[in-house]
Amino acid sequence: MTRIEKINNKLNELGADCFISFDKSDVLYFTGVDGDGILLIIDKKAFIFANKLSYDYIVNKKPKADVIQITQGIKRLEEFLIENKIHSIALDLKSTSAFSYQTLLKNFEIKDATDVSKQIRMIKEQNEINAIKRAAIVARNAFTKVYPMIKIGVSEKELKDELDYQMARFGAQKTAFETIVASGVNTSFPHHRPTDKKIEDGDFLMIDFGACVDGYNSDCTYTFLVGKRTDEERNFYNAVFYAQTFAREFIAPNRTRAKDIDKRVRDELAKYGLDKYFIHSTGHGVGLDIHELPYIDSTSETLIVPNMVFTIEPGIYIPGKYGVRIEQTILVKENDVEILGYAPFMEII
Amino acid sequence: MTRIEKINNKLNELGADCFISFDKSDVLYFTGVDGDGILLIIDKKAFIFANKLSYDYIVNKKPKADVIQITQGIKRLEEFLIENKIHSIALDLKSTSAFSYQTLLKNFEIKDATDVSKQIRMIKEQNEINAIKRAAIVARNAFTKVYPMIKIGVSEKELKDELDYQMARFGAQKTAFETIVASGVNTSFPHHRPTDKKIEDGDFLMIDFGACVDGYNSDCTYTFLVGKRTDEERNFYNAVFYAQTFAREFIAPNRTRAKDIDKRVRDELAKYGLDKYFIHSTGHGVGLDIHELPYIDSTSETLIVPNMVFTIEPGIYIPGKYGVRIEQTILVKENDVEILGYAPFMEII
Repeated sequence: MTRIEKINNKLNELGADCFISFDKSDVLYFTGVDGDGILLIIDKKAFIFANKLSYDYIVNKKPKADVIQITQGIKRLEEFLIENKIHSIALDLKSTSAFSYQTLLKNFEIKDATDVSKQIRMIKEQNEINAIKRAAIVARNAFTKVYPMIKIGVSEKELKDELDYQMARFGAQKTAFETIVASGVNTSFPHHRPTDKKIEDGDFLMIDFGACVDGYNSDCTYTFLVGKRTDEERNFYNAVFYAQTFAREFIAPNRTRAKDIDKRVRDELAKYGLDKYFIHSTGHGVGLDIHELPYIDSTSETLIVPNMVFTIEPGIYIPGKYGVRIEQTILVKENDVEILGYAPFMEII
Repeated sequence: MTRIEKINNKLNELGADCFISFDKSDVLYFTGVDGDGILLIIDKKAFIFANKLSYDYIVNKKPKADVIQITQGIKRLEEFLIENKIHSIALDLKSTSAFSYQTLLKNFEIKDATDVSKQIRMIKEQNEINAIKRAAIVARNAFTKVYPMIKIGVSEKELKDELDYQMARFGAQKTAFETIVASGVNTSFPHHRPTDKKIEDGDFLMIDFGACVDGYNSDCTYTFLVGKRTDEERNFYNAVFYAQTFAREFIAPNRTRAKDIDKRVRDELAKYGLDKYFIHSTGHGVGLDIHELPYIDSTSETLIVPNMVFTIEPGIYIPGKYGVRIEQTILVKENDVEILGYAPFMEII
């Protein structure tokens, strides 16, 4: 079934005449072009409404869609809908602004299609998997270049800048997200921003990074212990390592549910009394968006099936002390899972 | 008047009990902290609602706000509003999702506060101007490093990667936006994405880039003619150069309106018969967001007053041939304007 056919099936279920998306990832997914525009799908046909600034660029990229030029906001889009006798619109309410929603609501019935395109995008096609693999390999190769720089005295920001640069040179269109490099007490914040703090003897060092290649992202986190270490720190690290490994090995395609993976992680950490420090969910889907379906958390009933791509990233964060997170992006296959961009580094320097 | 007092005045005008923003730039502007959270302002008091993942990070940064932890979506925020007898909420509909809007609409009256915080942020304070200047200087210094690389045979992507790297090394927290490097026919697309195309003799080369420092952005575009050139190309370049220069010099603080600047650009280009190729607006405000108020376009009645910061960026794009854009970010002062991060390069190699 084509992507457009899949969205059409959903439109039929919702009783909507068309699908509109303001989400750039949807535009890319359904038309093949990464450009600024609004996506409209009616029956078997896709349209991109683009302003003058991006119209030529999009046309030149030969999208699988008709491209229609807009000038003032979405007025031309609304006229087009009326010309095509559209009464009801399926809309993802999370990726639509309240402003656009209110505007469309004046003339059309809105059907809640939140997460509908994301559910389609959750199951990857082979060319998407290949792109994510390329992104993961770019990130791994970049890290291989930067690895020798990791020494006492180098700053978080220096490592971030080198890693971003190397990802670009290995072919990343951009980073998948703002690269995190945290050391020492900064590792106790899951989403630390790199600073000029230098790495000190005995620091934990956490590096969370990914590349974007052909629109698709990769995501992984390494945590290292630099220099001298205590038994407590080593045990702490090992607990997260085991939680990550066992959760990954636990996955049985077509049988495991997302919440079971999350539970497997928490059960393992609980053995060490560390589950109370695991303050985020276990993982998230990765694709055109860096965070997408499936979410691997305690409430998700989603069945894990082949061709899903998501992260497994247990972490523990002891306030005022330090944190450890180990993250891999995995591909679900028929009988097992594959780690994308696996880096055979010693995890402890 | 403090920032909070300014928003309170707006709340009184709107008859709203509080202001809620899902815009990260608003969170940073009103609380001083760059973190993931929802901003709430009631009377003189700011609150940040943050999930577990970012709670400690935000608290540790000592925001000018109380920080309240949320778990499932915005449920805790809604409870808090009810506890505080809030009936009506001022909401920027452009930076709020339809999903959040619908959720809040169930229990509260929504007052349209679209662009209200952006109007406050449009007039910069001295520390904001200083940050934008630092960002502009970082970008200029980075470009100085990359300038010698601009030669026939180097690719768009190589130049982009080096420029991004140098901005980071000079102190940018990140780039202000995805750096554009376009050459040859690619310059005919205002928002081209850098490719592996190598720069050829006779190419126009367009580089649009900016740095983000302490949350504030810079923005400028250089266009060069590499190698041999025709008289037509030289005239073409000069037309844009004059349009940019004359529009900048035309500004009289407290008297000029945004639409007049736009008209001055178009009038100049019309002298060369090139106005039909100017397919975007003349400029935009720059600050915490790379595109913010004031917009310098044909319909904007906004009076240009001291401490506004915006771009002037005429461009002409001849389909299938080439384009030229020259962009500076300027600060409006009492009697004239100042170019931020001015680079004394020869504009033609």
